[in-house]
Amino acid sequence: MVTGSEAGDAAYTTDAFHRGRFFLVQPARKGHRAGTDALLLAAAVPDGFSGRVADLGAGAGAAGLAVAARCGQAEIVLVENAPEMLHCARATLALPQNAPLAARCAVLEADVRLAGDARRAAGLADAAFDFVILNPPFNPASDRPSPDALRRRAHMMEDAALLGDWLATAASTVKPGGGVAIIARPQSLDEVVSALSPTFGAIEIRPILPRADKPAIRFVARGRRGASAGLSTLPPLVLHREEDNRFTEEAEAIGSGRAALFGD
Amino acid sequence: MVTGSEAGDAAYTTDAFHRGRFFLVQPARKGHRAGTDALLLAAAVPDGFSGRVADLGAGAGAAGLAVAARCGQAEIVLVENAPEMLHCARATLALPQNAPLAARCAVLEADVRLAGDARRAAGLADAAFDFVILNPPFNPASDRPSPDALRRRAHMMEDAALLGDWLATAASTVKPGGGVAIIARPQSLDEVVSALSPTFGAIEIRPILPRADKPAIRFVARGRRGASAGLSTLPPLVLHREEDNRFTEEAEAIGSGRAALFGD
Repeated sequence: MVTGSEAGDAAYTTDAFHRGRFFLVQPARKGHRAGTDALLLAAAVPDGFSGRVADLGAGAGAAGLAVAARCGQAEIVLVENAPEMLHCARATLALPQNAPLAARCAVLEADVRLAGDARRAAGLADAAFDFVILNPPFNPASDRPSPDALRRRAHMMEDAALLGDWLATAASTVKPGGGVAIIARPQSLDEVVSALSPTFGAIEIRPILPRADKPAIRFVARGRRGASAGLSTLPPLVLHREEDNRFTEEAEAIGSGRAALFGD
Repeated sequence: MVTGSEAGDAAYTTDAFHRGRFFLVQPARKGHRAGTDALLLAAAVPDGFSGRVADLGAGAGAAGLAVAARCGQAEIVLVENAPEMLHCARATLALPQNAPLAARCAVLEADVRLAGDARRAAGLADAAFDFVILNPPFNPASDRPSPDALRRRAHMMEDAALLGDWLATAASTVKPGGGVAIIARPQSLDEVVSALSPTFGAIEIRPILPRADKPAIRFVARGRRGASAGLSTLPPLVLHREEDNRFTEEAEAIGSGRAALFGD
């Protein structure tokens, strides 16, 4: 899905996504580079969606631009706080290759963890968006067995607190009837559903499996504010084929912006 | 999986399960007859499991006897409260065909919803079991859109309260290190995981899909008391084949007691 090409500045690269339908300026360091997660998250927005979409924790803009590329009427606000990623998001929107999409995209410098008046003052108004997508950061060490159990537990609690804050911002900034989608790790399923449930209904879970016979490595949850329907679990998206480890047909279609994750 | 044969008493039938490895005396009325759910739940107990197993809400004994049939060292307590189903469970254990299994099975008349001293007095002692399996009843109307929203909401709250009581009994009656497994509807996923999480870790969710491309109709959750590992979501069990609606190979193996649901 990603083809790399070194830019003039060695600290950053410019990479093509969705077969050249958009490009990202990203740090060359591996840790902060956009990957499959952002593209899967973007695919949770229905085809042909029009309205205002917030990409909370947008990074260089991967998920937001993927939505802009697939949904020609959507307007995207890339919300980011980290200076390096803000730089990337702005450089991404300034790329001449992105001009057709950039007119519908904006960057908002704001901390997603803010609440109440501080959040509103930062530009994240109540009921401001028709759809909010979230790809919250997490501590990679917290899902690995660690010799230091206390430290691991601290990481897990940090992750849970951040997830709670982010989902509270999503709940406040989505309009009644609007949508939310989040990609997260399987061990956070309960926290995510519990945090969404008071505000969002018709919650659908789509597990993401690396292979058909392996446990999920991620899930995408989607809901609608104020809907009364209950929780459902959809068939998983399987990323890789058994025989040759290549992307499955469905993963390839979703990852390249040719299909939506929830079939709509 | 089930072959019916009318018994002398027209109100009851005697049916073969697991290709004749055990039999159930059941009410002839359709509503109370054991089905796939009980067999899927039983399959959550690992192959070769030995120890004391409680089947909470055992009905005629389908899940408990399926465990007894597959796990030759397990001892089963069928816990039931409804007089008609108690009658069936006792008649089931008295069937000559079940003699090889019945020696390891017992019936306990007790209300699973009891707590504290009342529960202990009813015969459900603290930390009495190595594994507890639950197939809690639910109001079928609560998962269908109803013209009477208030009534539907009341059903959902009744179901949630019952689920909470049953899982509290499971948490109290399982030994440290012991297992729990429950089969429930997808809309109860959050309640089940939230109720299990304080006591049980290493919780695994296996969604049950009617077909590969349809949302889950049930899930089985399994956990271990005191384990520290996080929540995981496994590949779904798909019940029916696309082409002819027959059971898939895996569903057939699990439903007939030849395979375990979690691959162990």
